Amino acid sequence: MDQQAMDALRARFGARIETGESLRDQHGAGDSWHPAAPPDAVLFAETTQEVSDALAICHAQGVPVVGFGHGSSIEGQVQAVRGGLCLDLSRMTRILRVSAGDMDCTVEAGVTRQALNEHLRDTGLFLPIDVGTHATMGGLASTRASGTMTVRHGTMRDRVMGLTVVLPDGEVIETGGRARKSSAGYDLTGLFVGAEGTLGIITEVTLRLAGIPEAARAGLYAFADIAEATECVIEALQCGLCLNRIELLDALQMRAINAWNGTDHPETATLMVDLAGSEAQVAEDLDTLGELAAGHGATVSPCATPEAYNALWALRHSALYAARGLRPGCKSLSTDVCVPVTELPAIIAGIQSEIAAEGVIAPLHGHVGDGNFHLVMLFDPDDADEQDKVRRLNHRLVEMALAHGGTATGEHGVGLGKKIFMEAEHGPALGLMKRIKQAVDPKNILNPGKIFDL
Amino acid sequence: MDQQAMDALRARFGARIETGESLRDQHGAGDSWHPAAPPDAVLFAETTQEVSDALAICHAQGVPVVGFGHGSSIEGQVQAVRGGLCLDLSRMTRILRVSAGDMDCTVEAGVTRQALNEHLRDTGLFLPIDVGTHATMGGLASTRASGTMTVRHGTMRDRVMGLTVVLPDGEVIETGGRARKSSAGYDLTGLFVGAEGTLGIITEVTLRLAGIPEAARAGLYAFADIAEATECVIEALQCGLCLNRIELLDALQMRAINAWNGTDHPETATLMVDLAGSEAQVAEDLDTLGELAAGHGATVSPCATPEAYNALWALRHSALYAARGLRPGCKSLSTDVCVPVTELPAIIAGIQSEIAAEGVIAPLHGHVGDGNFHLVMLFDPDDADEQDKVRRLNHRLVEMALAHGGTATGEHGVGLGKKIFMEAEHGPALGLMKRIKQAVDPKNILNPGKIFDL
Repeated sequence: MDQQAMDALRARFGARIETGESLRDQHGAGDSWHPAAPPDAVLFAETTQEVSDALAICHAQGVPVVGFGHGSSIEGQVQAVRGGLCLDLSRMTRILRVSAGDMDCTVEAGVTRQALNEHLRDTGLFLPIDVGTHATMGGLASTRASGTMTVRHGTMRDRVMGLTVVLPDGEVIETGGRARKSSAGYDLTGLFVGAEGTLGIITEVTLRLAGIPEAARAGLYAFADIAEATECVIEALQCGLCLNRIELLDALQMRAINAWNGTDHPETATLMVDLAGSEAQVAEDLDTLGELAAGHGATVSPCATPEAYNALWALRHSALYAARGLRPGCKSLSTDVCVPVTELPAIIAGIQSEIAAEGVIAPLHGHVGDGNFHLVMLFDPDDADEQDKVRRLNHRLVEMALAHGGTATGEHGVGLGKKIFMEAEHGPALGLMKRIKQAVDPKNILNPGKIFDL
Repeated sequence: MDQQAMDALRARFGARIETGESLRDQHGAGDSWHPAAPPDAVLFAETTQEVSDALAICHAQGVPVVGFGHGSSIEGQVQAVRGGLCLDLSRMTRILRVSAGDMDCTVEAGVTRQALNEHLRDTGLFLPIDVGTHATMGGLASTRASGTMTVRHGTMRDRVMGLTVVLPDGEVIETGGRARKSSAGYDLTGLFVGAEGTLGIITEVTLRLAGIPEAARAGLYAFADIAEATECVIEALQCGLCLNRIELLDALQMRAINAWNGTDHPETATLMVDLAGSEAQVAEDLDTLGELAAGHGATVSPCATPEAYNALWALRHSALYAARGLRPGCKSLSTDVCVPVTELPAIIAGIQSEIAAEGVIAPLHGHVGDGNFHLVMLFDPDDADEQDKVRRLNHRLVEMALAHGGTATGEHGVGLGKKIFMEAEHGPALGLMKRIKQAVDPKNILNPGKIFDL
């Protein structure tokens, strides 16, 4: 940004407009394989009013603004590709209100899901968004995040009831509210959820919570192949079993997990399944699931104890690290397509044959109940050919997903990484997204260059 | 519309541009207490291409266009307040695709929920949107409709996965898709759901279906008052019981139902509850619910047989007719506020004391698990004073709902009837809705005068 803009920000915020190089570098990178693009300055905003003041100044000066929570987005959402101000909301950590009776709460955007669930513990409630990383409510909402419990509890689209949002010119609006449903006009809440900070900066989030279930049981089901595992998932969904998580891991991912954790589970297509509900329901559904899985030739290993249950989910949560452990020193690119569940066997077989032909190591795990899976494609960061290969494979996978009625990104968002696919995915609807962006942010100061180019 | 516009439409559609008075009157009224406002002409469109052609002509000629399905909206959504063309989609009734494995389908906008559920019967699936009337998928989506099963299955917002929409200038776009989740850009699907035909005309809908449960049991629970009934609902929600429907009826509504149906249920605050799931789960949860209800002093009457189950829900579905039966010859205005569940006792007590003071007859029933209820306020259509009184009470109720963190409309939509409340409900966010409308429909031809005035 130019000196005039910097002076205007300093006039309002003084030395809190920080420009140290390491701070800027950290804020321009995130947990992403995309090259860092540092902002010109960082402000740790502490109130909605401060966000509003900062945006009003940046709007007047034509300075780009990038929202920042925990920096755990992986598609280049926080890269300040046109410089400008990074608004870090991680100090906005107040839990403003919890209503146990209504099973909802309102929090500032910088609250992490771990902090929220810790705070909620005594209420018997929790936020059922089980992503693999630390992340803030603002970030989770902005990328329409989801994770392992989507099969039961939906995504952030389903959990966010209302928002406080600062528009590009600094105007503060409130969307949605505390009613569990409403037909009162356009769904602005839904518009900001998943907009990756391109339409407004979310400063407060009202969330619909879930009750901690009375009982939970889990099991590991080892199948001959992914097609059999998928068939079992479809039947479990159709039966309405009380699925809380139903996760698919391929043979290579299981090998990586065994190596990483010193376990000896079958190294074949595997479902890790979590059932939650009342004691009787969970016991009944665990039996039913066991029968369904056996019908597809699976080796059935229900967890007999709470310790075994916890150990199973610790294994699942080690999947990414275990995958990277297959090739120490490598970096990884996680794919993120999501397709109708019945299309999973075909698309996985298709991409895995291309992966094999290219000689890339890419274990698979995913949220199979939603049709969303991740291939952790490993590459040598110093080998440009390998990087190209991995990018080409990712590109091929997205093409296949779109051909199978799916989407380029189930939960990681578009950022920089998935921009090139948006025309193919949305067709003329992309033009409407751009018209909305132009109507809301005509100066294009909010996270410019993300999702699409104008 | 002027002669030039009419000529242009006739050049494309010939005698299918219909102008008979009774047809126009019917299309300008709907099931609404609002005065009829007939369109200048009606076209029964049969394909998306025809809708596109009609919109392109109307856009060029500046002719207003109102979408029409089954005419069952009740807030004046179909009133052609600025004349123009009514696009009736009720002949677009093709079921384009059902995927039992993915539990989804794609249908044309004119398919009714009854026709869809009839078609789906053999698949074990159904669309869990249980509204009180016949309605088309386009209409249900456009008003973000919901009904009695929202507590378990959500609203149309949660069931619609994707749409084919014709924009004001005739451009056809597809939003969303068949993946169960996506983070690929703005949620355009959610933007059109609930937009009441002001942003585009929905011609095809992709829907997420639900499995018909193995078992369902119901019961009637008679409480001393609404506060006790509400406390019981809150506990049932917190316990995560397998609630399929949880409906509240007040003493007057129960009196009306008894009189209408010749039954003799207690005439006091009543819950009618439907539990659905596996046999064991339903049996267990029915016991738990009975204990919760007894803890709040309720008389507990579980339905012992399938016949009793069906009879109970037939009673519930008679509620509106039974209410009107309290005063033959009357008309009725149904209120539609939705508030946090814990706020229900206060707001219901508040409005009922004002209703009593005004001497209005207004039985109450509603979807208490969502915090949404309807007062059926009866009035003599020839008595202007009574009409004013009823409107004032509706106005007071909405004010109370907003003060209690709720919304003016839980499921009926805004149309003409709730426009006056949008500024109070949304504040500055209403301005953003208008900016979006102007960006999408700059000539304001789509259902002008609805939701808000520009």
